[in-house]
Amino acid sequence: MRIGELSARTGVPAATIKYYVREGLLSGGERRSHNQVEYGEDHVRRLRLVRAMVEVGSLPIAKVREVLAEIEEPDRDLDSTLGVTSRALSHHRVPAEEPAEEDLALARAIVRRRGWDAVPADHAHIRTLADAIGRLRELGLADMVDMTGEYARAAEIVAEIDLSLLSTRRERDEILEAMVVGTVLGDAMFEALRRIAQVEVSARVYLRGQQDPQGSE
Amino acid sequence: MRIGELSARTGVPAATIKYYVREGLLSGGERRSHNQVEYGEDHVRRLRLVRAMVEVGSLPIAKVREVLAEIEEPDRDLDSTLGVTSRALSHHRVPAEEPAEEDLALARAIVRRRGWDAVPADHAHIRTLADAIGRLRELGLADMVDMTGEYARAAEIVAEIDLSLLSTRRERDEILEAMVVGTVLGDAMFEALRRIAQVEVSARVYLRGQQDPQGSE
Repeated sequence: MRIGELSARTGVPAATIKYYVREGLLSGGERRSHNQVEYGEDHVRRLRLVRAMVEVGSLPIAKVREVLAEIEEPDRDLDSTLGVTSRALSHHRVPAEEPAEEDLALARAIVRRRGWDAVPADHAHIRTLADAIGRLRELGLADMVDMTGEYARAAEIVAEIDLSLLSTRRERDEILEAMVVGTVLGDAMFEALRRIAQVEVSARVYLRGQQDPQGSE
Repeated sequence: MRIGELSARTGVPAATIKYYVREGLLSGGERRSHNQVEYGEDHVRRLRLVRAMVEVGSLPIAKVREVLAEIEEPDRDLDSTLGVTSRALSHHRVPAEEPAEEDLALARAIVRRRGWDAVPADHAHIRTLADAIGRLRELGLADMVDMTGEYARAAEIVAEIDLSLLSTRRERDEILEAMVVGTVLGDAMFEALRRIAQVEVSARVYLRGQQDPQGSE
């Protein structure tokens, strides 16, 4: 297909497609004549993946290139590629400083108590979790730290949904696209749902308070 | 107390305290003599709240001023103030364009099916949810849209934890501080836990695949 059709099928403007080719995010099409370049189905799929990372995930071009390099590594299994992509998609949360040993130990204990034995003790997101725990402690919200195990229970429900959606897909690029889009839009969706649920739960608590004017202390 | 002690107790540098006073985020202390200004416990509490919004929530100063104005409105009940704060804390997610009617209807149906009857149909976060649903549809992930109800179930678990943490607090500023910090760090913590849980669930799925080499189709 010509670049116009590739653009129409992916929703990516022709100028942007050419930019991605120059930046090495997409292989060039096959030149047929002086002013005709032919693109194939591989280009459609790859372009959708790039678009998901850039537009939905707001990843900088350099990060996208890094993830794509990982995808194209022939010795790399899908599981490891998913890990690299997952880390790339949460770069804004990764703590700059090493968390305190005490907070790391607490984060690991939460993971262990949920029986998540497949998770390596030095996993990047365990550091993110430890960093958040440290900040809660500093701000005097130790009771919220105590509830992290309950947060983990809810996170497991979401992760099970996430994986069930990947398991129906067969193509490597299709799985990765679903993973990128699902991770980023899933975060946004969950944030919105958490705030909506707070309105509901808050109203229930308030109504209970009204029925019992002495309070519940 | 003098500004040095206020700084030590809140972890906010003296120059920053003076900046907050100039910007109207904090009332000035009581002037005792030419070079002595006295601050009280109200300043400690207010400063912790400002710090939570600025440092943890990354809110711009203008937004913090808006939330504080809401807090100081004497006719405003706590529930409504919490609503305003919750919206301020998710400004980066609110969609620029109005979502499609079809996606709004879907978002409302999800809320209704969970029995969240206290949530107004025009709640800001329902629009955020509708926007995410629209993007999933556009990208061909309709099966993820179908799972949004399950996401909502997990979000309710988290919201119940959130509210239980607020209900142990009595002072208005203390409740708001816990809400701001809990919302922002809770988002970060949940994102990390979701990714950690994905590693675990993914390993389980993979192991199941190995034990059953014919696949499960």
